[in-house]
Amino acid sequence: MRPRFFLPDIADTGVGSLPEDEAAHLTRVLRLGVGDDIDVFDGVGRMFHARVESVAGARVTVRTCGPAPSAPEAAVRVTLVMAVLKGDKMDDVVRDATMMGVVVLQPVVTARSEVRVASLGRSHRVERWRRIAVSSAKQCGRATVPDVRPPLELRTWIAGHAGHGGDGQPRQERDMAIVFQEPSLGATTALRDLPRAAAVQLVVGPEGGWSEDEHAAFQSAGFRAVSLGGRTLRADVAPLVAMAALFEAWQGW
Amino acid sequence: MRPRFFLPDIADTGVGSLPEDEAAHLTRVLRLGVGDDIDVFDGVGRMFHARVESVAGARVTVRTCGPAPSAPEAAVRVTLVMAVLKGDKMDDVVRDATMMGVVVLQPVVTARSEVRVASLGRSHRVERWRRIAVSSAKQCGRATVPDVRPPLELRTWIAGHAGHGGDGQPRQERDMAIVFQEPSLGATTALRDLPRAAAVQLVVGPEGGWSEDEHAAFQSAGFRAVSLGGRTLRADVAPLVAMAALFEAWQGW
Repeated sequence: MRPRFFLPDIADTGVGSLPEDEAAHLTRVLRLGVGDDIDVFDGVGRMFHARVESVAGARVTVRTCGPAPSAPEAAVRVTLVMAVLKGDKMDDVVRDATMMGVVVLQPVVTARSEVRVASLGRSHRVERWRRIAVSSAKQCGRATVPDVRPPLELRTWIAGHAGHGGDGQPRQERDMAIVFQEPSLGATTALRDLPRAAAVQLVVGPEGGWSEDEHAAFQSAGFRAVSLGGRTLRADVAPLVAMAALFEAWQGW
Repeated sequence: MRPRFFLPDIADTGVGSLPEDEAAHLTRVLRLGVGDDIDVFDGVGRMFHARVESVAGARVTVRTCGPAPSAPEAAVRVTLVMAVLKGDKMDDVVRDATMMGVVVLQPVVTARSEVRVASLGRSHRVERWRRIAVSSAKQCGRATVPDVRPPLELRTWIAGHAGHGGDGQPRQERDMAIVFQEPSLGATTALRDLPRAAAVQLVVGPEGGWSEDEHAAFQSAGFRAVSLGGRTLRADVAPLVAMAALFEAWQGW
């Protein structure tokens, strides 16, 4: 298998320069050079065969030579709305969600999250998660890199989703929103009883679960509440289990 | 929530002594003593309310006082036949598989496993996995502790499963066996197209996947081959994704 590199804004027959960290990986880690065959992907669904055309210091230029196969995308377009977890657990979530086929990853800070939006900004976590998403896409052969959004307070995200926040304009189109919760919080539905949607927002909570207020906010915003058999799962594997169940229920693999 | 302790062989109204490590956890970590209310579970499906009756050095005696609620068991009885992974990755597999509801965990050493059965024995890995299974059951409130079996070579396990190994007697009853594999290895079925079974053996491979010989052995033993959309997953989360898909497909949560 050819080594893969992330090259946004590449055309199918054209020349492009690898981003700095990709160029460094090519020359220093893999020790490739002019004439070597690689694959490049643009992060929005296209993979190409390519050849290294020139190496000048940190600048690596490649020329694409036709489309290359990439891992299949899921039939359901999933936005994972994930409560930010403690420590570096989000790293695994980003990596695994990328492999499972998530398209957008929206980190949210909830009542029981043990971090704040401001501190996530100071520690450049989004940049880190974006690098992990690129690296995970490379590893599994996806040509799509999930769009990792800047973290939001959960209530801000809900307001935007429900169409009465942000610019004050109602949203014309809304994905179905599914929140995973413990059955003790209230009535839940089975995934297979929901109407299938082409795009879905999966909302997964933090280690301590949802607060009563958050549960009420989901209800009033019309979110579908789903539980997975009353199981207690580690928060960092819950999104994987939720996505697997969704893909299986809707045949969205 | 009352602290939970593992107490095999306990009757619903009776007195029993906690195993040594459970007793140490009660007295030294949680600093409980005579008269404190706890829950005890027998590991084979029963949870009881109990009270500490006496503490004498390392010996803690408890008296049960009626049944207590425990986490629901899955409707499908799952044996996870899991290729032993590198390093301590099996620890996470044991913990998460316990939380997902596995009933038996059979570690197997495959062509591409980077460990041998003998070295697993020398490093007392089974004992470690059993402790993790107990601890995970406690944490998620299951009254059932998965039976973690000693590791076997994959071919030995297949021979036993197919009924022509071990004691030479054909097995009267066989669970359905499902092997998860990359679609490139051969034809696969969707989970929902399989007949539902009350008990199933889920076979999940190591980091490097199955060898051609192993694939042939699964085929000749009549295993059902299933793929999950051609995704490349980390080996330590693959069993979780497989179980979630199975429970959803068969409504076995």
